[in-house]
Amino acid sequence: MPEGAPSLEVPARVIPIPAYLSPEASGVLGMGRMTAFAYPALEDLDAWRSMIATRQEASVGILTSMAKDLPVTSKRISARGVGVYDLVPEVVDTNDPRVYLDLHGGSFLTGSGEVCRATGALAAMRSQMRTWSVDYRTPPDHRFPAALDDCLVVYRELLETHEPGDVVIGGTSAGGGLAAAVVLRARDEGLPLPAAVVLSTPEVDLTESGDSFHVNLGVDSMLVASLMPANLLYADGHDLTDPYLSPLFGDFSKGFAPTILTTGTRDLFLSNTVRMHRALRAAGITAELHVLEAGPHGGFFGLSPEDAEIAGEIRRFITEHSSHDATSATQ
Amino acid sequence: MPEGAPSLEVPARVIPIPAYLSPEASGVLGMGRMTAFAYPALEDLDAWRSMIATRQEASVGILTSMAKDLPVTSKRISARGVGVYDLVPEVVDTNDPRVYLDLHGGSFLTGSGEVCRATGALAAMRSQMRTWSVDYRTPPDHRFPAALDDCLVVYRELLETHEPGDVVIGGTSAGGGLAAAVVLRARDEGLPLPAAVVLSTPEVDLTESGDSFHVNLGVDSMLVASLMPANLLYADGHDLTDPYLSPLFGDFSKGFAPTILTTGTRDLFLSNTVRMHRALRAAGITAELHVLEAGPHGGFFGLSPEDAEIAGEIRRFITEHSSHDATSATQ
Repeated sequence: MPEGAPSLEVPARVIPIPAYLSPEASGVLGMGRMTAFAYPALEDLDAWRSMIATRQEASVGILTSMAKDLPVTSKRISARGVGVYDLVPEVVDTNDPRVYLDLHGGSFLTGSGEVCRATGALAAMRSQMRTWSVDYRTPPDHRFPAALDDCLVVYRELLETHEPGDVVIGGTSAGGGLAAAVVLRARDEGLPLPAAVVLSTPEVDLTESGDSFHVNLGVDSMLVASLMPANLLYADGHDLTDPYLSPLFGDFSKGFAPTILTTGTRDLFLSNTVRMHRALRAAGITAELHVLEAGPHGGFFGLSPEDAEIAGEIRRFITEHSSHDATSATQ
Repeated sequence: MPEGAPSLEVPARVIPIPAYLSPEASGVLGMGRMTAFAYPALEDLDAWRSMIATRQEASVGILTSMAKDLPVTSKRISARGVGVYDLVPEVVDTNDPRVYLDLHGGSFLTGSGEVCRATGALAAMRSQMRTWSVDYRTPPDHRFPAALDDCLVVYRELLETHEPGDVVIGGTSAGGGLAAAVVLRARDEGLPLPAAVVLSTPEVDLTESGDSFHVNLGVDSMLVASLMPANLLYADGHDLTDPYLSPLFGDFSKGFAPTILTTGTRDLFLSNTVRMHRALRAAGITAELHVLEAGPHGGFFGLSPEDAEIAGEIRRFITEHSSHDATSATQ
């Protein structure tokens, strides 16, 4: 770029809620912008523990109430010592051997325990597959690569009893970054790749270099600020461009699994998602991109017809790429 | 949406040029924002003619110089009275029966004549197919449905001598809107559908209802203001939601052809493109979305490796969906 090339000055503006969105989606945008968290200093671990507990408490009520009446059986199991919620939607054909390995979001900090159970149950309903939701370890007490190690352990455990073509790996936000990192590391360690990968608004670049970190700052009502303090805590001094931390910088020419990526036009992680799609496609990997109009980070809480449409795309993609044809089996 | 739901107030910000873009793409963003045109009053036709002539003159030099050394033969022909540039890249296999019907952009106002020849030659190089670029009639002297009528005439003419599976319809911006309208109208008139459709940052909603008309206003350096005056001039009093004017509002459950759509994260038409993708997918139509990171309207002048990658996706998509397998034929 030319020396001294101008940055773009964009004036203040008011952005209305699009009139054509569903009432559910409009309602989510109508809640306005979330309040930004004040992050502690990196070394103040007690302050981190307190902040994480506060955030966890704030989300556990709403998520467990969203999940409590879902027709999904759940139990907590141990996979080689790693805690996992084993979630089976009633709708699942008992002959369907497939498992969806779900990695929860929460900036690598939150989303554990009962939140993991609840988000796993919601993921199970979206995928309509038996789901293993990994309760991976989190900072400040367990930093990189603890979470990734845990996810790898569970993936290895699944491969003991399942064909790779029956395993799908997916995650949202930080969990999407972990999902991509699991696939890269599985490949590097010579493990078979899963049938398909689902990356929902994935945090695949902890350096936050994407253009939408600027363009959609203040536009995304869910992610309202940089997550860099959380990224640095999780990374524990490792280079943020390490592909196991920021899978966007991986070498996909060495192989990856078919991937479906989802984001929204207002998403702070729009660039994360779009760049990951392009990186996969540049390496010739099967990859599909779906973008929710006016969607903030994470979409519309999964409650809108717009979200349901994206969930339908994910189910179709999984069916196309996994061994078991759920569509024909249920007919 | 709740009564009185707040619109989002987004403060002013400075958006840097992403460091990871190619030098060519950075150079385009480094040019800064184009100057907005002052549109004449709707009824001042002489002022429109003068403005259109000025804009046409401003673009003809750069576009003809971009196209002049391309290895493409060109001649102007008449298809049932409609002017067409017949453009054949040297690389095209003489046994390849396929034709790319290219509809140029220019807000329905500009892009005629030698600009049409030049942009058609560039489209021919991108698709690596014989290309017919339609020099459709434009306002203020010829308004809706004149341009669409012209494109339909040429499509009908192509069908006289070509299998539908050998015809691809594509366009950029206003031309993308026209391309989608041609397919809707061909379907409604009982004509066979083309093999594939290429919608590059398509103007499929003349009401400009999409969220990116707000979010990316001032962010897109190429389209820097509403095009509503041009839309109203072209529409000539017709309802802007008519699907032949705004194909986004068409009923795709009655059928459409496989479609590839391209846009950029900074594109004022990001929502146009994303919404069209979702509308097609909701109706079960094969449709692929590709988004250029930090790309403004129209991408990076077609000069960057990023643009080249998208052109590669378009060629692959066409090969997958048209009768003639250009890849195997040239081996």
